[in-house]
Amino acid sequence: MLHTLGYTTTGELLADFPLEEIHTQDFKWFWVDFDQPTEEEKLLLTLFFRFHPLAVEDCLNRLQRPKLDYYDDFSFFVFHSICNDDMEAEELDLFLGTNFVVTFHLQHLREMQDARERIMRNPEKFEYGPKLVAYQIVDQVVDEYFPILYKIEDQLNEIEESLSPSTVHLSMDYVFDVRSDLLRLRRTIYPMRDLLYRILNSERLGLNTHEQIYFGDIYDHLLRLSEMVDSSRELTADIRDSQLSINSNQMNRIMMILTIISSIFIPLTFIAGVYGMNFSNMPELQWKYGYFIVMGLMLLIFVGMLLWFRHKGWLRIFKS
Amino acid sequence: MLHTLGYTTTGELLADFPLEEIHTQDFKWFWVDFDQPTEEEKLLLTLFFRFHPLAVEDCLNRLQRPKLDYYDDFSFFVFHSICNDDMEAEELDLFLGTNFVVTFHLQHLREMQDARERIMRNPEKFEYGPKLVAYQIVDQVVDEYFPILYKIEDQLNEIEESLSPSTVHLSMDYVFDVRSDLLRLRRTIYPMRDLLYRILNSERLGLNTHEQIYFGDIYDHLLRLSEMVDSSRELTADIRDSQLSINSNQMNRIMMILTIISSIFIPLTFIAGVYGMNFSNMPELQWKYGYFIVMGLMLLIFVGMLLWFRHKGWLRIFKS
Amino acid sequence: MLHTLGYTTTGELLADFPLEEIHTQDFKWFWVDFDQPTEEEKLLLTLFFRFHPLAVEDCLNRLQRPKLDYYDDFSFFVFHSICNDDMEAEELDLFLGTNFVVTFHLQHLREMQDARERIMRNPEKFEYGPKLVAYQIVDQVVDEYFPILYKIEDQLNEIEESLSPSTVHLSMDYVFDVRSDLLRLRRTIYPMRDLLYRILNSERLGLNTHEQIYFGDIYDHLLRLSEMVDSSRELTADIRDSQLSINSNQMNRIMMILTIISSIFIPLTFIAGVYGMNFSNMPELQWKYGYFIVMGLMLLIFVGMLLWFRHKGWLRIFKS
Amino acid sequence: MLHTLGYTTTGELLADFPLEEIHTQDFKWFWVDFDQPTEEEKLLLTLFFRFHPLAVEDCLNRLQRPKLDYYDDFSFFVFHSICNDDMEAEELDLFLGTNFVVTFHLQHLREMQDARERIMRNPEKFEYGPKLVAYQIVDQVVDEYFPILYKIEDQLNEIEESLSPSTVHLSMDYVFDVRSDLLRLRRTIYPMRDLLYRILNSERLGLNTHEQIYFGDIYDHLLRLSEMVDSSRELTADIRDSQLSINSNQMNRIMMILTIISSIFIPLTFIAGVYGMNFSNMPELQWKYGYFIVMGLMLLIFVGMLLWFRHKGWLRIFKS
Amino acid sequence: MLHTLGYTTTGELLADFPLEEIHTQDFKWFWVDFDQPTEEEKLLLTLFFRFHPLAVEDCLNRLQRPKLDYYDDFSFFVFHSICNDDMEAEELDLFLGTNFVVTFHLQHLREMQDARERIMRNPEKFEYGPKLVAYQIVDQVVDEYFPILYKIEDQLNEIEESLSPSTVHLSMDYVFDVRSDLLRLRRTIYPMRDLLYRILNSERLGLNTHEQIYFGDIYDHLLRLSEMVDSSRELTADIRDSQLSINSNQMNRIMMILTIISSIFIPLTFIAGVYGMNFSNMPELQWKYGYFIVMGLMLLIFVGMLLWFRHKGWLRIFKS
Ligand SMILES: [Mg+2]
Ligand SMILES: [Mg+2]
Ligand SMILES: [Mg+2]
Ligand SMILES: [Mg+2]
Ligand SMILES: [Mg+2]
Ligand SMILES: [Mg+2]
Ligand SMILES: [Mg+2]
Ligand SMILES: [Mg+2]
Ligand SMILES: [Mg+2]
Ligand SMILES: [Mg+2]
Ligand SMILES: [Mg+2]
Ligand SMILES: [Mg+2]
Ligand SMILES: [Mg+2]
Ligand SMILES: [Mg+2]
Ligand SMILES: [Mg+2]
Ligand SMILES: [Mg+2]
Ligand SMILES: [Mg+2]
Ligand SMILES: [Mg+2]
Ligand SMILES: [Mg+2]
Ligand SMILES: [Mg+2]
Ligand SMILES: [Mg+2]
Ligand SMILES: [Mg+2]
Ligand SMILES: [Mg+2]
Ligand SMILES: [Mg+2]
Ligand SMILES: [Mg+2]
Ligand SMILES: [Mg+2]
Ligand SMILES: [Mg+2]
Ligand SMILES: [Mg+2]
Ligand SMILES: [Mg+2]
Ligand SMILES: [Mg+2]
Ligand SMILES: [Mg+2]
Repeated sequence: MLHTLGYTTTGELLADFPLEEIHTQDFKWFWVDFDQPTEEEKLLLTLFFRFHPLAVEDCLNRLQRPKLDYYDDFSFFVFHSICNDDMEAEELDLFLGTNFVVTFHLQHLREMQDARERIMRNPEKFEYGPKLVAYQIVDQVVDEYFPILYKIEDQLNEIEESLSPSTVHLSMDYVFDVRSDLLRLRRTIYPMRDLLYRILNSERLGLNTHEQIYFGDIYDHLLRLSEMVDSSRELTADIRDSQLSINSNQMNRIMMILTIISSIFIPLTFIAGVYGMNFSNMPELQWKYGYFIVMGLMLLIFVGMLLWFRHKGWLRIFKS
Repeated sequence: MLHTLGYTTTGELLADFPLEEIHTQDFKWFWVDFDQPTEEEKLLLTLFFRFHPLAVEDCLNRLQRPKLDYYDDFSFFVFHSICNDDMEAEELDLFLGTNFVVTFHLQHLREMQDARERIMRNPEKFEYGPKLVAYQIVDQVVDEYFPILYKIEDQLNEIEESLSPSTVHLSMDYVFDVRSDLLRLRRTIYPMRDLLYRILNSERLGLNTHEQIYFGDIYDHLLRLSEMVDSSRELTADIRDSQLSINSNQMNRIMMILTIISSIFIPLTFIAGVYGMNFSNMPELQWKYGYFIVMGLMLLIFVGMLLWFRHKGWLRIFKS
Repeated sequence: MLHTLGYTTTGELLADFPLEEIHTQDFKWFWVDFDQPTEEEKLLLTLFFRFHPLAVEDCLNRLQRPKLDYYDDFSFFVFHSICNDDMEAEELDLFLGTNFVVTFHLQHLREMQDARERIMRNPEKFEYGPKLVAYQIVDQVVDEYFPILYKIEDQLNEIEESLSPSTVHLSMDYVFDVRSDLLRLRRTIYPMRDLLYRILNSERLGLNTHEQIYFGDIYDHLLRLSEMVDSSRELTADIRDSQLSINSNQMNRIMMILTIISSIFIPLTFIAGVYGMNFSNMPELQWKYGYFIVMGLMLLIFVGMLLWFRHKGWLRIFKS
Repeated sequence: MLHTLGYTTTGELLADFPLEEIHTQDFKWFWVDFDQPTEEEKLLLTLFFRFHPLAVEDCLNRLQRPKLDYYDDFSFFVFHSICNDDMEAEELDLFLGTNFVVTFHLQHLREMQDARERIMRNPEKFEYGPKLVAYQIVDQVVDEYFPILYKIEDQLNEIEESLSPSTVHLSMDYVFDVRSDLLRLRRTIYPMRDLLYRILNSERLGLNTHEQIYFGDIYDHLLRLSEMVDSSRELTADIRDSQLSINSNQMNRIMMILTIISSIFIPLTFIAGVYGMNFSNMPELQWKYGYFIVMGLMLLIFVGMLLWFRHKGWLRIFKS
Repeated sequence: MLHTLGYTTTGELLADFPLEEIHTQDFKWFWVDFDQPTEEEKLLLTLFFRFHPLAVEDCLNRLQRPKLDYYDDFSFFVFHSICNDDMEAEELDLFLGTNFVVTFHLQHLREMQDARERIMRNPEKFEYGPKLVAYQIVDQVVDEYFPILYKIEDQLNEIEESLSPSTVHLSMDYVFDVRSDLLRLRRTIYPMRDLLYRILNSERLGLNTHEQIYFGDIYDHLLRLSEMVDSSRELTADIRDSQLSINSNQMNRIMMILTIISSIFIPLTFIAGVYGMNFSNMPELQWKYGYFIVMGLMLLIFVGMLLWFRHKGWLRIFKS
């Protein structure tokens, strides 16, 4: 469906008027929002607004990256809104003319509703024209990125604090999932940041100081977001390396235990095996103290091995 | 063979006319496509068109990287078409003059056929000159990159979702293959992107606003493609690290099992071995409850060891 | 609470005067410091100073990154002070006008007190205006970063010198903690460095040569700090890799010991087991020298195995 | 020895004339090649040509990096020729004046001979002056880099195709050798590329369009070479990681086999050991079916363990 | 102590004259070297030369990074001299005025002595002024970096050539030490390189062509040094990875030996254990050929296992 909003030259804010009034009313600016448009509504881009075919093609195709294209009578933007649940980017296309904003999105975006309400609460703030309306829309979209990244940062910090040998394999899988989420977020946030930079420095758009302060505020947010993505990815890499190192440490300890026990008892078992042989002529077997001598010998070997392992510092592993 | 296409000053589109008509007809622009040229046809570059020897050399040699060279009376481009099957880059050489496009490729390229058909369907779109013809050719070539990268992205996402200890070694080899494919794709896509950037900003070529919108559309696609290559390579690195970490985890579990079983039964076996010795004088053997005492002792050791391993948290590995 | 400091046109330095005197007194410059302001005091930003709402919003929100925004009648800075104990960044907001500095911080910052005292000791040094006052504040804030990084560098060097197989697992956890601290520090120091660079080259601020020398001194410090952060992170990576390599070496040695002992005694134990079988018809058992022959055979195997392991160079591990 | 070549104002090409004729003959340009010069010949740089001492010092010292220095009456270049056998860089120093080229190299370079022959075959192509002579020399030098890199790329691709657990340790050493060769090549190719870029954009050298096309062709080659070095090094890194991952997989399989066999037979051996004890009072030993009961028990344990390992999916390793 | 050197307008070179003569003599330039200055001598910076307090502060503080600050009547440089023994950077501060050079260093630097001697040998080379004196000093300082890096490169190449399983753990520790030395060197060489770049391009310093050639020569050296540091660090990373891979290979071989021997003899030992049981009713024991049948069975198992391991390709490890 289509939502309309307009600010007349007489300083009135009209909402949800029929599209045709655009030609009859005297608007300082108007905003038409294509919200999950039907096939017929999509045709209006070409038939009613007469936008350039390449821009219309970019609207209808999915998965454009954030960008800015200048056409003769309007500028065309692609922004990305990030869905909180699955971190998928939703495309938001925006046409900005001298006195209009047209937005187009195949999914319903709550941010559009929020922007509309903000404008209706302070219409006088937006009297200067459509660029501030565009600002309000983009600001709303970018503000939605923060809770997503805050949540990731909190979880990573939590994991990092609690890393220990016994929990290491639990967090592993989660960390790799977060890494791929961050990769996906980066594919939205980096181009959005570069796009805002272009907007701020665009001669064609010609923002005045007032507008630059507002769009600069969004750019600022995107700078911070891109740094958050980068340092979160580095943190996941550190956690992963930390896990590998905990694993490798634990492996050493496991193998030490196996080696100590095997090294002590395998030779002793061999000795017992020797005197378990059934040869008819084995003199030691008949000695009166043969058994006790052999047991003493085994004890000596046992103690000697223990001392050797203690000398190597391995016995510590039985303590902690 | 050679394909010709020309747009006369009278607004007519001629196809497959003999090469000589170029001098007799009055063309706004013409396009000559050297499609798998024979040795005689190759000579035409020098003899008929009189192109600069360095440009002709670049045509005849294989494995040029995408580039743009300015010569006095034409610009010379090397583009890469990527073959869907083996991801090998095929060279497409393009000479752009004020009123002509000459393309040269040693392999048959389906994209040339497609571009020709597109032009024949809307000849009036191309009346302004050869630059839009060149656009149509390059656009066709670059559009072919997308399905290749989409396929890789889909497969990587699938692998990433399904990573588990039991499948880890199956995907390993595939991941390394994808990495080297991405390396190969990058060697085409990065220079193509830089080339389109040069084309967009070239004063020598002097694109008008209309043409800039069109070539900007291709540049845009190449930007996205290069980001897709980069993040896919990062994703393969993540998958590989994930696999190493799964492997290392599993190794720990394997060694824990071995260590638990060996640590319990090797000492017990030793004790059994001791009482299997055949010394004539072994007092315990004659005790009435000797056997039961030793069995009780063994049970104590068994239970003690189990408790110690449970205390260390190792027994969990027998559960899942 | 609020701290005030002012330099009158008559060359007098006034401290802790009531806010209203700003309008009555003739100040060359004055500095108002909002130190842990109450809710009422926060309102003064808007009601008394009439700062732009976006700047006030940035004051009241936490977790802004260091930045510089130009407004019509003042410049707005966000700086970060780093807390020595937990390496958390505290935000310090600064409004710089032609004749005033206003600072705002929700935590008490010792550096503000220090800056105030420095100014009161040499008031004549600051007669030229508020930019040098701002310099004094920022210099104080950045100077506090050094002891934190020096401490980290010292500890890393100490660890690096003392790395050995027996201490390797102790330092591991510490190294990963330092890495995440450095990540946090970097998020302050990089943007601070970029901010000082902008300040130095800002035409809007228009620093004179004298002021440029002073602010250049801070930029210089931040350059060094960012290099210290970078090389410390590289050093932690080296230590971590060094630890992994020590671990992997030690694992090899552990497994060699286990393999040598098992490879020697397991076959010997098998032979003893064979002659411990109770078959009624085992000719060797009745041989007069059967026992001695078997013992000799075992000795041969024992020596042979030892020679083979010595040939492989494995016996060295028993030495060190 | 010295090789001379000169193009007279009358359009004649003279070769191997004595050095003194430079002053008597009327040359459009001349080229003097110091080929493995003797100590006396080296002095000619200073005494005969009167080159600046810093430039002469750079000639006589080895191991200069590729570079370009402007002096008052000539430009001084250092190029690197790569020896096909050991990939060592040989220095080639080149002085370019308005009407002369002087080259200096302590090793004999086959490329100098080739360049001389090329010039003698088409002298008219070089009539414009010494810059094209310099082009011919550098082109010859850079063309020699390609076969070296093609060979490395071919071998890496071969290794990558054939990686398998049984060959993994054979290729390991080779891969590390290739990595250090690539490091060495990069130290030549990167600075050569940057040098050619400087040459192309040098106002001092003032190349005309014709010369720019020629030097641009070399720059183009060096761009491709530097990309080949980079992607080859990435490929070696991938191969190395692939090998580590194959190793780690194989280790898991080895340990699984050991663990399965030990876990099954060590407990069984313990049971056999128990009934091999020689206590006089062991009731089970006298039971009529004691032996069969114990054997059945062992069979149960054996089958139980096998089922448990199959449940864990470990038995697959015995298949492939 | 202080060393003085001066070139009078009459073309005379004076050495070790008292500081006061600076005001009485007519010097084209003079150089005062503060060599391990006493506390009183340090005061001269402020009292005699009246340098800016920030510059004097930078002199007296240690651990400044290489830099260049412009003050009204002089330029202030911090250079680093690297001590050959411990690779610690020593600070060298240099004030450059229109007719003077003042150097300041808390340690004795042999390079200062060398520079002084060079100047005294060719005083006429330095008649143009203090910039060439500064050149001579910095050139001397940077020349000292080379032997340090050459030594590191030689040792790394040696290690790389000789890597083998038996020496792998010896070189490990050395490689990590070299890595941290290179990190330290880089902290000197990178900022020195950037500083020389600034010097070369500084409008304030205004080097003439002659001086640019000389300072360009130093910049050139620093470029090469920074590349040497970078590729040496990459080489150490390669050596480290190579060692990890050798270790991992060797681990596989160790475990294969253990697994082969255990897998063969543990089951055989079990069988022997079974027939060592003392049940009164064990029919096989009474069979005439029971012993020989069991021995044959064991032989079958032994050979079967060997064949299976040969089939898996594991027996190769016993060869080399
Ligand atoms: Mg498009
Ligand atoms: Mg769209
Ligand atoms: Mg916002
Ligand atoms: Mg907002
Ligand atoms: Mg921790
Ligand atoms: Mg996910
Ligand atoms: Mg804000
Ligand atoms: Mg490992
Ligand atoms: Mg070609
Ligand atoms: Mg396209
Ligand atoms: Mg298309
Ligand atoms: Mg997962
Ligand atoms: Mg492939
Ligand atoms: Mg704030
Ligand atoms: Mg400071
Ligand atoms: Mg200070
Ligand atoms: Mg060490
Ligand atoms: Mg911490
Ligand atoms: Mg300072
Ligand atoms: Mg030389
Ligand atoms: Mg060439
Ligand atoms: Mg060539
Ligand atoms: Mg493969
Ligand atoms: Mg080699
Ligand atoms: Mg070419
Ligand atoms: Mg100092
Ligand atoms: Mg030098
Ligand atoms: Mg020198
Ligand atoms: Mg080698
Ligand atoms: Mg050291
Ligand atoms: Mg030199």
